[in-house]
Amino acid sequence: MIAYHPSLRDRQLLGLKDMGAAELESILKRAAYWEAHEEKRIPVLEHRFIANMFFENSTRTRFSFEMAQKRLGAQVLNFAAAASSVEKGESVYDTVRTLESMGIDAGVIRLKPIGVLEELAKHVKVPLINAGDGNNEHPTQALLDLYTMKKQFGEIRGLTVSIVGDIKHSRVARSNLWALKALGANVKFCAPHSMQAAELEEHAPYVTMDEALDADVVMMLRVQLERHAEGVLKSADEYRAQYGLTTQRAAKMKPHAIIMHPAPVNRDVEIDSELVEAPNSRIFPQMQNGVPIRMVVVERALR
Amino acid sequence: MIAYHPSLRDRQLLGLKDMGAAELESILKRAAYWEAHEEKRIPVLEHRFIANMFFENSTRTRFSFEMAQKRLGAQVLNFAAAASSVEKGESVYDTVRTLESMGIDAGVIRLKPIGVLEELAKHVKVPLINAGDGNNEHPTQALLDLYTMKKQFGEIRGLTVSIVGDIKHSRVARSNLWALKALGANVKFCAPHSMQAAELEEHAPYVTMDEALDADVVMMLRVQLERHAEGVLKSADEYRAQYGLTTQRAAKMKPHAIIMHPAPVNRDVEIDSELVEAPNSRIFPQMQNGVPIRMVVVERALR
Amino acid sequence: MIAYHPSLRDRQLLGLKDMGAAELESILKRAAYWEAHEEKRIPVLEHRFIANMFFENSTRTRFSFEMAQKRLGAQVLNFAAAASSVEKGESVYDTVRTLESMGIDAGVIRLKPIGVLEELAKHVKVPLINAGDGNNEHPTQALLDLYTMKKQFGEIRGLTVSIVGDIKHSRVARSNLWALKALGANVKFCAPHSMQAAELEEHAPYVTMDEALDADVVMMLRVQLERHAEGVLKSADEYRAQYGLTTQRAAKMKPHAIIMHPAPVNRDVEIDSELVEAPNSRIFPQMQNGVPIRMVVVERALR
Repeated sequence: MIAYHPSLRDRQLLGLKDMGAAELESILKRAAYWEAHEEKRIPVLEHRFIANMFFENSTRTRFSFEMAQKRLGAQVLNFAAAASSVEKGESVYDTVRTLESMGIDAGVIRLKPIGVLEELAKHVKVPLINAGDGNNEHPTQALLDLYTMKKQFGEIRGLTVSIVGDIKHSRVARSNLWALKALGANVKFCAPHSMQAAELEEHAPYVTMDEALDADVVMMLRVQLERHAEGVLKSADEYRAQYGLTTQRAAKMKPHAIIMHPAPVNRDVEIDSELVEAPNSRIFPQMQNGVPIRMVVVERALR
Repeated sequence: MIAYHPSLRDRQLLGLKDMGAAELESILKRAAYWEAHEEKRIPVLEHRFIANMFFENSTRTRFSFEMAQKRLGAQVLNFAAAASSVEKGESVYDTVRTLESMGIDAGVIRLKPIGVLEELAKHVKVPLINAGDGNNEHPTQALLDLYTMKKQFGEIRGLTVSIVGDIKHSRVARSNLWALKALGANVKFCAPHSMQAAELEEHAPYVTMDEALDADVVMMLRVQLERHAEGVLKSADEYRAQYGLTTQRAAKMKPHAIIMHPAPVNRDVEIDSELVEAPNSRIFPQMQNGVPIRMVVVERALR
Repeated sequence: MIAYHPSLRDRQLLGLKDMGAAELESILKRAAYWEAHEEKRIPVLEHRFIANMFFENSTRTRFSFEMAQKRLGAQVLNFAAAASSVEKGESVYDTVRTLESMGIDAGVIRLKPIGVLEELAKHVKVPLINAGDGNNEHPTQALLDLYTMKKQFGEIRGLTVSIVGDIKHSRVARSNLWALKALGANVKFCAPHSMQAAELEEHAPYVTMDEALDADVVMMLRVQLERHAEGVLKSADEYRAQYGLTTQRAAKMKPHAIIMHPAPVNRDVEIDSELVEAPNSRIFPQMQNGVPIRMVVVERALR
């Protein structure tokens, strides 16, 4: 339906929903190549200009992309807009088209309003890389999650991955769901009723917290309680009691299972503080894995 | 009267008011050289340090300068100050002298308070490039406007250029006025009474909107209605009705005439949304042209 | 007591309290080397990545570090967090560990909460450079102050240095105190009662303003009157009258003595405006000296 420019389509990264297993695997393989590279900086993109356009606040994602871009020697320009000053989709469009006009070769973009990224990608002639798109997709996060699992287990096919928390508002959950299914993993969701996404029910079952712990990967999501002020789960304590990964619950996990979280964590809300750097936690390694993954995605955009 | 260091004077760019036709033409010619350059990055300034000092918010101007600087391989340091924390001219002076002391080779500066830039340039020993000076001048914007016109018409002499909108508060209008007159163009202004600058009347006539449409270039200015709360033109609708470039009005333009706007546009206020990317609009090409223009200006500062 | 990784300990710079005279002198000597270097950019660190992590606002310190890093050719990533969003020590910890995970080779860090930096340094495996730590230490500021004094007087041993102002809240005063004592200078403090730090009394005497003027160096501190709303010194005028370096007071200084200030200055509060660039002021030269000092500190972190 959408008439993407064919070569652009292969270079941009809007989401993982339609990405096949072969391409996913090739990205993970290339990330391993970059991670193993003995040189920290490989200036293959010195003549390419990339804009990091963040219309929503970010610390780690922007920083991770910038590390990846600079490891590849690219010229990096950062643009951040307060959500307040660029609220309408149309202004975002004008801003992105402006930066495009100035000669960037690719753009990394984070946006809040739903549907704007897809619309933008129809009009912008340089590849866009989704760095967080409303509650729709966050493909590089899911790719680094997959890469973390692959490093741990060798193979993703057959793994059981529980995703726990605010599924409804989570772009991380959605991108992981699509990619994990494509690679043959089993996905389970666990969330309070007000945080469930009805439209995802056909793709993964909602289970109890106890059932969620029975998995190879327990992926906790950041909960933003301020979004749920009137819900059943009024307080952080209450959320932790019902859906938090407490040390007691973590003790029930399989011996080989790992804990993941896209970060930033709310310590002692969705996850107990002492679990963050526990031996079976991969939270900081996930962030480490984000850099080679983003090197691949940037390289892919500019090939 | 002001005792600029002679060589500095030739390298800084405070405004276009006193720049002669020969220098204007040589800048436009050099911009064409950079635009045609087959390499995107020509690292001739790798050992030069430039500070972008924005004491007033900016997206596109800062980004455009940074593109230009990085295409030339310069070392770029960005400094942005909330208007609130640096409000007095004296603080701006201390900040700029501080950055100068740290060893920058040139500074790009945007400032709100009137007269501060001129005062600064008397004391600072590195070349300053004006990136927006209150309502006084915005020389690189006018240079990219001239370059856009020259690319379109081959010659600026004899062109008729209408500038429509808030002339009174517009540094873009002033810089364009001085440069267009120097190059032999005819300038017409069109503005509601409250947005007219009396002191410019001797240089260009104020005309009606219909007369303004009779031109080779119709340059619309961004209107900031919040500045005119008590004026005659209370609403965006009213402004559009009287001074906006609507599709109806645009249809009356000469077949060869072009639409320009320094951006960002208020869509459907001073210009109808569907005109922004119309075939005779040069709004996004203007932004594209800003990069080679700023390459020339940066190169000129560091020669 | 704290089990720093031994080699890290020699590369990080948390404070000057325990730094011996030999190391201080070697840093000053190396700064002279960099200052005299004929090339402005010496790209010895092109494969090293440094994060400037500012959890408290800064203009000049961040800029000065960035100049130093870029003169050495390092890859620089800037991270700034509004104090509001990262208020608890734990969030700072997660953020710093995150950036560390992404592969930085060193971090420059500014923090407000007391004790967090020391705690961080126990857990982070890359060298941290203190760019301002609550009211505890600001070692690079004191090093550039020492360097300024050494350039002026040849030798620091035997100099008398008066530090005037809000000693209690000043990390600059503390870092200078430790380093000046280590190098054999005499330090005097001068401050209103509410701005005195009792715990420092054993290291340097509190003297009157007249006695403070009898020194080789009169170092004025920035006063933040808003911190002292209920104190004896209610207004800027009152502060200036009692503790400001007025032109009258400056006239009483020894002919060879110099004025210093870490900046930014409150003109006509702690120092009269016309003294800022007086012949015996070293305020802007201090900022100039900060760059070679920070080159040494960055180079030392990455050796």
